[in-house]
Parts: sequence; C-alpha cells; structure tokens
Amino acid sequence: MAYATNSVLLTDLYQLSMLNGYVQQGMHDEAVFEFFVRRLPEKRNFLLACGLELALDFLEGFGFTEAELEWMASTERFSPQFIDYLSTLSFTGDVYAAPEGTVFFADEPILRVVAPLPQAQIIESRLINILHVHTLIASKAARCVMVAPDKLLVDFGMRRAHGAEAAMAAARASYIAGFAGTATVLAEKEFGIPSFGTMAHSFVQAHDSETESFFDFARSQPNNTVLLIDTYDTEAGAHKVVELKPRLDELGIAIKGVRLDSGDLDALSRRVRRILDEGGCERTAIFCSGNLDEYSIHRLLSAGAPVDGFGIGTRLDISEDAPSLDCVYKLQAYAGRPRRKRSTGKATWPGSKQVYRYEASGGFFSHDVLTTADDTRDGEPLVEAVMKGGRRTAPSPSLERIRERTAEQLARLPEPLRSIDKAPAYEVNVSEQMKALAARVDREFF
Amino acid sequence: MAYATNSVLLTDLYQLSMLNGYVQQGMHDEAVFEFFVRRLPEKRNFLLACGLELALDFLEGFGFTEAELEWMASTERFSPQFIDYLSTLSFTGDVYAAPEGTVFFADEPILRVVAPLPQAQIIESRLINILHVHTLIASKAARCVMVAPDKLLVDFGMRRAHGAEAAMAAARASYIAGFAGTATVLAEKEFGIPSFGTMAHSFVQAHDSETESFFDFARSQPNNTVLLIDTYDTEAGAHKVVELKPRLDELGIAIKGVRLDSGDLDALSRRVRRILDEGGCERTAIFCSGNLDEYSIHRLLSAGAPVDGFGIGTRLDISEDAPSLDCVYKLQAYAGRPRRKRSTGKATWPGSKQVYRYEASGGFFSHDVLTTADDTRDGEPLVEAVMKGGRRTAPSPSLERIRERTAEQLARLPEPLRSIDKAPAYEVNVSEQMKALAARVDREFF
Repeated sequence: MAYATNSVLLTDLYQLSMLNGYVQQGMHDEAVFEFFVRRLPEKRNFLLACGLELALDFLEGFGFTEAELEWMASTERFSPQFIDYLSTLSFTGDVYAAPEGTVFFADEPILRVVAPLPQAQIIESRLINILHVHTLIASKAARCVMVAPDKLLVDFGMRRAHGAEAAMAAARASYIAGFAGTATVLAEKEFGIPSFGTMAHSFVQAHDSETESFFDFARSQPNNTVLLIDTYDTEAGAHKVVELKPRLDELGIAIKGVRLDSGDLDALSRRVRRILDEGGCERTAIFCSGNLDEYSIHRLLSAGAPVDGFGIGTRLDISEDAPSLDCVYKLQAYAGRPRRKRSTGKATWPGSKQVYRYEASGGFFSHDVLTTADDTRDGEPLVEAVMKGGRRTAPSPSLERIRERTAEQLARLPEPLRSIDKAPAYEVNVSEQMKALAARVDREFF
Repeated sequence: MAYATNSVLLTDLYQLSMLNGYVQQGMHDEAVFEFFVRRLPEKRNFLLACGLELALDFLEGFGFTEAELEWMASTERFSPQFIDYLSTLSFTGDVYAAPEGTVFFADEPILRVVAPLPQAQIIESRLINILHVHTLIASKAARCVMVAPDKLLVDFGMRRAHGAEAAMAAARASYIAGFAGTATVLAEKEFGIPSFGTMAHSFVQAHDSETESFFDFARSQPNNTVLLIDTYDTEAGAHKVVELKPRLDELGIAIKGVRLDSGDLDALSRRVRRILDEGGCERTAIFCSGNLDEYSIHRLLSAGAPVDGFGIGTRLDISEDAPSLDCVYKLQAYAGRPRRKRSTGKATWPGSKQVYRYEASGGFFSHDVLTTADDTRDGEPLVEAVMKGGRRTAPSPSLERIRERTAEQLARLPEPLRSIDKAPAYEVNVSEQMKALAARVDREFF
C-alpha cells in the first residue's frame, strides 16, 4: 500500500488517451464541465454536497512527478512530445461550486470547471472519486442525524469502510453532517475531528473475569470509562457494573457509560437502565452499537428505548442502502459553444448552469430553478466562484464552519424531505431559457 | 488528502485505549486472533480470500513514526510511559493464512495471528479494513468471471469506488479473480495490471462532428482504436464507423472495437454487429459498459447478444448487491487458554482453528471440516504459516501466480455454487473436537 493516493495516475487510461488526442489536434480551447447526480437513489430525498475542499486540494496540487513521467515513458504508449507536454501540466482553471454541506437534488450541478479542455478532462476520474464518496456518506449521515438529533452519534465504521480513504471520508463527512465524532484516530490527527472509543470484546475476553476487565479498563481510562457489557450476558454485565461502582468511587472514577453491541437493544437498554438506576448508576449513559443505521435507530427511539448515544459503523461507512450515486462530470460547452450528450436515458442539459433556490415562510426551501448561468434571478444561487486560475479564491472554511452551515441547511429542509421514508420529489423546475438553449443546441448539432 | 494511508493511527481509538490497559496490567502473553466472515451475504454462494499480501505489507511495516508519537503526546490522552512503549512497538508475531484466491465460507478463519496481546490487538482495525474490501470485491468479480468466462472483462469503476484505495483494491481484486485488466492507470504502475481504455463522450462532444472525433481519436491511438458510438445515436454511430473505415485503412489503422454505453444493449449490439459486418468491419469487436454487473451480463449473453467484452464499473467496485461482509477478527485464546465470545447472535468457536477441505470426483470441493488447529486430518488444510516473527516465510507470490491459483480454485467449485442465484449452502461441518473444546471453555468460564 505504498502508492501515493494523490498520484495523478489515479485516473482512467482513457483520460490520458483523450488528452493525447486533444494535444495532437491542438484542442486547448476553454471547456466547461459540470458535476451532478443524474438521479437520487430510491432511498434518498436529498443529498448533501461534501468533499469540495479535498477536491480543491487535488486541483491545486495537480501535476505529474518525474517518477510518473518516467513510468509513462517506459510504457511506450505515448510520444516523447506528449510526455514533455504532461511535464508542464497543472490546473489553471476556474471552479464554481456549492459549499460543502449544501443540500441538492438530481440534475443540479454542484461544481463547474472552466479550463482549457485537456486540463478539465484529465481531472475527471479523481474529481468524481473524491466528490462521490464524501457526498454519499454525508447524505447517509444526515439521515442518522435527523432521526436522532439530540443523541451522541459516533462513526464506528473504519474497519469495514472500503479502504483507508473511505474511512477518512466517512469520519469527515459524518462529522460535517452533525455527528459528534469518530472512532478513527487519524481523522482526529488530520482533520481535528473529536475521536471517541470504548473497549472491545477481546479486552473482556483476555481477562479471566469480566469484572476485573472492567476494573482494569476503568483504571487505565479514568476519564473515559465506557464499559462494554455484552460479551457474555448483557444483564449480568450491567449487574457487574453496579457491583464495581463502590470500588471505582473510592478511586474517584465515574462510570461514564456502558455499551451494548448485540441482542434486542430495545429490551436490553430498558433492563440495563433499570439495573443501573437501581444500583445508583443513574448518571451512567447507555451507548448502543452493532449494525445500526437510521432505520434501526429510528425504531429504537420511537419505541422509547433509553439510549443516549449510538456508534454507527458499517452501514454508515458504506452507505448500505444506497452504496453509490449516479454522479457524472459532463462536458457542457467547448470553445464557447454549448454541447449536450443525447445517449438514451443519459441526455444532459447543455451549457454552464446555475441553480436558484427559493424559500417559503419560515426559511424552508420551497423549490429550485435550474437555468443557464447567464440568467440572473432573485433566488439564492447554488454555485459560486471558489477557484480562479487554479487557486482558491478564499481560504478553506474550518470544519466547524462547514458543520454549522450544514446544520443551517438541514434546518431549512421542508418537513416531508426530513423523513427517512420516500417523500414526493422536491420541486426543481427547468427554466424556459434552459429549454430554449437545449433546443438551439439540438438544431445546430443534429 | 495528504495523510499517509499506512499510518498506524488509521485505527479505532479503543485499540489505543485497550493497549494502554494491557500495558498497564502487564498483559503481554501470547494471544490468538482469527479473521473470518460470520455469515455469507444473501447474494453470495462463496467468498474469495483477497488482500493478504497487502495485509502482510502492513504488518511488516507496522510502527509509530516520530510525528505520530508527538501528536499522540500532544493529545494528553496517554502517559509518557505509554508513548515510550509505543515508540518501540513493531509486529513480531506469527501469521497463518489461506493464500489469496482461496475459496472460503462462513465461520472459516482465513487468517490467524499469534502474537503478544498488545501487538495482536492494535493491528485489528486496519487488518480488517484491508482484508474486507479486497475479499468483498474479489468475490463479486468472481461472479462476473463465471458468467462470462470467455469474454474480455475490464474494471471500469475507479470514479465511483469509495476513494483511492477502494479503486486500487478493485483493480487488484478483479484481476486476481480473472478480469483481463482495469482502466485505472495507477494499478498498472503499482501492480503491473494491464490497463485498458477507450474514449469518453466528452471527446466526441468536444468535436463539432462525431466522425471527425473518431478520426482524430484513431490517429492518436492507432494501436488501440476503440470508438464510443452512443453519444448521440448508437446505430448512426455504427454507420459512421463503417464510413470511416476506408480513410483509416489508408492510414493502416484497424478499428479494434466500438463501445456501447447506454440503451438496450441486447438489441443495439445485434444491430451494431449487423451494421459492422455489412460494412466490412467483421473484425471490429463490440464492447459494452454502463451499470453492468453479473446479472445483466448473464442476461445479455444468455440471450445471445454478440458482445465481446464488458467494462464493469460501479456495481463491481462497490460490490453493489452485497457492499459489505460480516467479517470479524476475534480473540480465540490468551495465555494458552482458549476463549470465546457468547454475545447473542455473535458467539464464536474458541481456540486456534484449521479448516480441512475434501474433494469429490473430478477435483470438485465436496465439504469442509472446521476443527481445532491441533487436530490433523487428511483433507487439504486451508491456512498455512505465512509469517514468523513478523517476517514473511516466503517471498510474495506474483500477481500472475495468485491469479492462476484463483482460477484453479474457481474451477473446483461444485456446479451449484457457480450459479449467481442462491444455492444450497456448501457443507461445513464442525468437528467433535471443536464442539468439545467449546463446551470445556464454557464450563471453565461460566
């Protein structure tokens, strides 16, 4: 795993083949590409834009290293002239985008790249790769936050995320969506996201006595004593916690919480709450984990299960009920002329676009209008300039700022869209200008 | 994305907390952990072990850097003594594992770690993270190979894989499973996997004429002319290919293939085949892509669609019909005593284990026996020593060797398991020795 994930060779071969073609034909005119999602997954009423700052990092750092160029030459697939061209290549274009944490819908471009064609083309695969996984997981995490707005939610999914980057993306995306933090330590080091952790079954098992494992753990983690009580028998585990309390009181150690990771969490959380309360552990919180997602959390909380927090793992990190988005990055104009793809079921609107969002009373989103970028309206525009000439127009917002913005956006979601069940689609209207442009492009090209 | 994916801090916080506890209690005795999948996904009849070589790389390279130790100290979460301990930590244990490409089933440990408890514990999260995504995608890819054994299959999924590492894992895992290669260039550079590529719609769109885009592309890729013909109208695109043939013949350029990426691929591939054949392009292959997986490929080929190859993207790279495996890494023994977890629905068999596989006539797998590691039998043992004292016992096999082994394994799958539909579960028997050990452990502990 010693390869660099920021290598420009993390791309599809056809990008290099096309680049070669563009360069040979001298096609360096300005291209406009847009990133959007063609259709929302069946189980999503909205999406949350995420990953932009990492995508901008990628664009700012874009460039071939000597080692990459040497390897490319060694494949004998490309001419020395083309390799020379690549050695000078960087990204010098403009980017317009919706800030991270923006709610968006099908067909709405949340990112527009305006750059010489080869530059705008070569970045496609990795740009999609970055925006996709972050947006995917942020959108899933937002659903968890909506069903448990007052609970402590923690990303527990690193081990079954699809590799290192997916784990880091999950930590960042879920924090932006409103999670309290993550179990992934590297996400605290790299992004400043609070990390949380308790203990695993192996810790209990490695001790000859469950009670002694709790005692040892408490002494080694006096400020963060959360005990996992389901290794052998959950209720018996809760009784052991109560029995341990006097010994820990003497040492000044409070039992902050217990974790349940298996079984009927509704029934068990109630019984454990009673055991803890009757044993003088009223302030010990109950934390649950184990194949949880927004559906099971919603069921637990609707039933009144006395749970204070949730560790959400695999189903969050892989966005289990919708593990991919039908997202694309499409050429919309070249050399000043709008273009469109007309492939069956995959036709696109041509040209640079803007989305205007309108609000109803109470600040709730009422509907959007998808229109041409030169059509100015009174709604709130979705995309704004974030990069000019290959450099950010402003410093990156802090993760806290992005998180606040996300909360503001989620608070403005119309009530029906807040449901984890399927809601009627949010209204996105296509402007007359947009339709007229598509008709004109069709007349010119076909 | 400047973080190192091989950082030892790519772990769950509780691993560090537990380590701290183990070190404080002086619990450095030998531990045995095993990695296995608790249940097969509904849509899988078998799994293909993958990722071992990368997991061994991780173990051989395990160690905290100065920067990581400094950061840990800065969190003030751990004592200076513990940080000192970490600074000397490496992995010095033994590993037993099934080679990559081994077919396996639920509850069968494909990897066993025997090491001092802190070492065996701290590697858990990342070890699972590596083995999970590779095994997940290899198992999906094997299904694609089984429905199209004589076709050219190429991994096209990088853009919607969950991050950089997932994309690289998909390229490697699908190649091991029998794919011809990948579109991901970095996988050719890093792993030597053949890369394939054609052109995108944007290339066609950037040109004012589709025919000229084909001509330009062919001239820039004379040895790899595969033309994407569905940007505007697939049949019209095929006619343009035929019309272009004489001009390319003059230049000595053969049209190796056309790619269809949308619409009714069954009907279109037949019409395109006829157009190509009638136009003298009998040797031009038809390559299909666009939301494909083993189900749609099976339908196309069963119906007799004249398709020569498939680019399989998103649904492969995210293992769409089973995007995660219920895989775990569990403590099975500590300090010479077998242990087991008894959590509801998650109980495990205790102690070090071995799986013996038996074959029926024709070399097909007939059944397995899960037993204790000290029980020697005449079947074929699944796991073997691959690491002693933290170092590999043999050099890594080449990817080609792993690929051959995988093909051998797949050829020995009993016919019912080769179906992409649900088959009766393969027979895995638990030995009397194993059951007796579990009963003994229960008597001692409970």
